[in-house]
Amino acid sequence: MEINSPKTLIVVAHPHIADSTTQQFLQAAVHQTSAIWHHIDGLNSLDVQQERQLLAAADRIIFQFPLYWYAAPASLKKWQEQVLSTNFIQQQLAHKQLGLVVTTGLPQKAFQTGGSASFTLDQLLAPFYAFGQQAQMQCLPKFAIYQFSYLTERQQQQLFMDYQRYLTQPSPDNLLNRSNWYLNYLQQHPQLPQQALLIDYLTQQILALDNLQTTWNLIKEAEDDRLDI
Amino acid sequence: MEINSPKTLIVVAHPHIADSTTQQFLQAAVHQTSAIWHHIDGLNSLDVQQERQLLAAADRIIFQFPLYWYAAPASLKKWQEQVLSTNFIQQQLAHKQLGLVVTTGLPQKAFQTGGSASFTLDQLLAPFYAFGQQAQMQCLPKFAIYQFSYLTERQQQQLFMDYQRYLTQPSPDNLLNRSNWYLNYLQQHPQLPQQALLIDYLTQQILALDNLQTTWNLIKEAEDDRLDI
Repeated sequence: MEINSPKTLIVVAHPHIADSTTQQFLQAAVHQTSAIWHHIDGLNSLDVQQERQLLAAADRIIFQFPLYWYAAPASLKKWQEQVLSTNFIQQQLAHKQLGLVVTTGLPQKAFQTGGSASFTLDQLLAPFYAFGQQAQMQCLPKFAIYQFSYLTERQQQQLFMDYQRYLTQPSPDNLLNRSNWYLNYLQQHPQLPQQALLIDYLTQQILALDNLQTTWNLIKEAEDDRLDI
Repeated sequence: MEINSPKTLIVVAHPHIADSTTQQFLQAAVHQTSAIWHHIDGLNSLDVQQERQLLAAADRIIFQFPLYWYAAPASLKKWQEQVLSTNFIQQQLAHKQLGLVVTTGLPQKAFQTGGSASFTLDQLLAPFYAFGQQAQMQCLPKFAIYQFSYLTERQQQQLFMDYQRYLTQPSPDNLLNRSNWYLNYLQQHPQLPQQALLIDYLTQQILALDNLQTTWNLIKEAEDDRLDI
């Protein structure tokens, strides 16, 4: 079964990307997908029209950055100030999806009242959610990566897949979409061990979900008929 | 009566300051005080040591900026990234005061759930409050200027004085400190009409507050004595 992935643009802001193992890890994950990796600090000069075309062509726009002083790097802010305008965002970005991939050297527990960051990550990201609201975009839940360097190999593998799913899985993030995404992933990665078993399992699960949906629709129709009498 | 004003540094970030009537208005207000106006976009190159010395010498540090895409301009973010370090802020900024002067073309009512900005200004400024917490600074309530160009002349006069008070009045912002600040202001501006009457009024008010304080202290001492028996 083919999934109908969104066209995803990742606007990556990181002033020292060559030194960032996290960003290199994420870039490797992106290269296995159809998503576009667009590193803005690397641009020699900013072509506003070209940036706007990239944005207009995407279904899902993701801002990806490390948290510096509890906010996005200056380079992303500068890009926003140069590329975006109220007219442009309302005419071209409305109804697209907005995602945020945020990396931080702080642990997850720092982001709470009484924690070392004092605020939740969502609270600190309020300027982006306000932007999404103004542009009438659909804000996706953020994708946060805490203390990448402390992750075990197993956790890194999970992150690699979860990140790819964040980039390419159709929304909403429900059981059917997730199952279809995993099935598609397995079919495209035949080197994975236990692949056949997993594919069988997922195919059965998806059929069960489809049956459930059909049953549910029949119940609803019957109910609607009853109410029409 | 002389007031003991804090040494105030205003870190001003505005990429188009020559076009900003608001910033010119505020700069005129600063020039009548002992506060330092430090426009960072105007610096040819950033001397980190010099910036740090300015910060270390201040009692009250104020970040002043227009809200661009619901956050501080890129220039302030870049300044933060270049000048600040975890060690520096914890060793040199602890226990200083942190103020925020934020200008915006949106009306005050935009900053609420359901308003056009979706968030309160305090929510959008969370990254600065998180910074203040990390530096163990004392965060002052923000000073917001909404839609400066719509202010009447009377409102502008009030703003001029309120802003100067935000820069120079000792904290906390209670009745005694406010009264002392106004009295000092009137004594230094002899051209103001009704000056003598206002000075008399404020002097009496301050004496009354002093008496109240003395009485309160006597009551507390008596209470303490009673409890010691």
